[in-house]
Amino acid sequence: MLVQKTVTSFLNELASNSPAPGGGSVAALSGAIGAALTSMVCNLTIGKKKYAGVEGDMKKTLAQAEGLREQFTAMIDRDTEAFNRVMDAYGLPKENDAQKALRSAAIREATREATLVPLEVMKHCIDAMALAQDVAANGNAHSVSDAGVSALMLNAACQGAALNVKINLNSLDDQEFVAWKSDEVGSILKTSTMMLEETMEIVADKLKKDGV
Amino acid sequence: MLVQKTVTSFLNELASNSPAPGGGSVAALSGAIGAALTSMVCNLTIGKKKYAGVEGDMKKTLAQAEGLREQFTAMIDRDTEAFNRVMDAYGLPKENDAQKALRSAAIREATREATLVPLEVMKHCIDAMALAQDVAANGNAHSVSDAGVSALMLNAACQGAALNVKINLNSLDDQEFVAWKSDEVGSILKTSTMMLEETMEIVADKLKKDGV
Repeated sequence: MLVQKTVTSFLNELASNSPAPGGGSVAALSGAIGAALTSMVCNLTIGKKKYAGVEGDMKKTLAQAEGLREQFTAMIDRDTEAFNRVMDAYGLPKENDAQKALRSAAIREATREATLVPLEVMKHCIDAMALAQDVAANGNAHSVSDAGVSALMLNAACQGAALNVKINLNSLDDQEFVAWKSDEVGSILKTSTMMLEETMEIVADKLKKDGV
Repeated sequence: MLVQKTVTSFLNELASNSPAPGGGSVAALSGAIGAALTSMVCNLTIGKKKYAGVEGDMKKTLAQAEGLREQFTAMIDRDTEAFNRVMDAYGLPKENDAQKALRSAAIREATREATLVPLEVMKHCIDAMALAQDVAANGNAHSVSDAGVSALMLNAACQGAALNVKINLNSLDDQEFVAWKSDEVGSILKTSTMMLEETMEIVADKLKKDGV
């Protein structure tokens, strides 16, 4: 598993001349980092007298952020596996028509899966950004910059996953599927951009007002 | 060292109720990930017949990206150390005027350092984004989405580091230093946003044109 590697050796593997892990796994990792930072802000808020009023909310947000972190973490490997399956399909023999048909079907199936993994990452990003916004607005003011970084990592995850959906859609023939998923990507991206802007405004406002 | 931990245990430490590592270290990590992805695109371009014309450029870009990755990686720990020094300074005794003066000076000094580390991350991000843009424009077209994710991670690193500069500037009294560094942050952020837009346009254009 990629996440059992040290950070250094993960980075080495990323930089290497092997195409996986690549941008898709990085998007999932960025999501996991963003969720972890939201959890940290929850943990730095829970138990503080000053924030007793939001303790229940923070505990709920923490549980959700940890759930999303787990999902993002699993998708770091899932994206690389999906990519490898596409490569495997391209490597199938194509010496006669029967083989060619089998190979095409395998490529199509693997590419659809490789499209759906980053699309799932994108959806989780939107859920996680709602939590980042919550901790930016209601969490420990001393950690408001961390809430902002959380939202930035989640938005980068969402935008990065979108590029991976798109590059995979490009090699699919099924125009109905492509149009459907392209629309989905467009609307999720719009939401992510909007949520990031809102959260960054909350953060900027707190950085000014509280002088934290 | 944080980067000697596994990805999973780094994420666990991030999510924990300890304020460091936090957003500052994450910004540096995001920079390292972005630089590593640019290196990957170089490595997937070098040695390919189709890209023989840019081989020299890609080798130079790879060397620079790897140099920046090393610097970003070192700054993951440096940011956490700088934060811990601020906390240590706040923990100094303040029972008499002499102690108070010493404590104030120590806090000021540590906070300045904690401001300069993320500011350095921001500057490295601009250098790295120029490389990401180069590989998006000239690197292997099959990896153009990775070049895009590289730019996204570097921009998130830059914006995230900026929040860490700002939150530290907020607790400094030296108005001249604060104004100077705030200006610097503003102009680097503008550059980062512009470079990201340019790179994302190159990526979108290639995703359309090449049908890669």
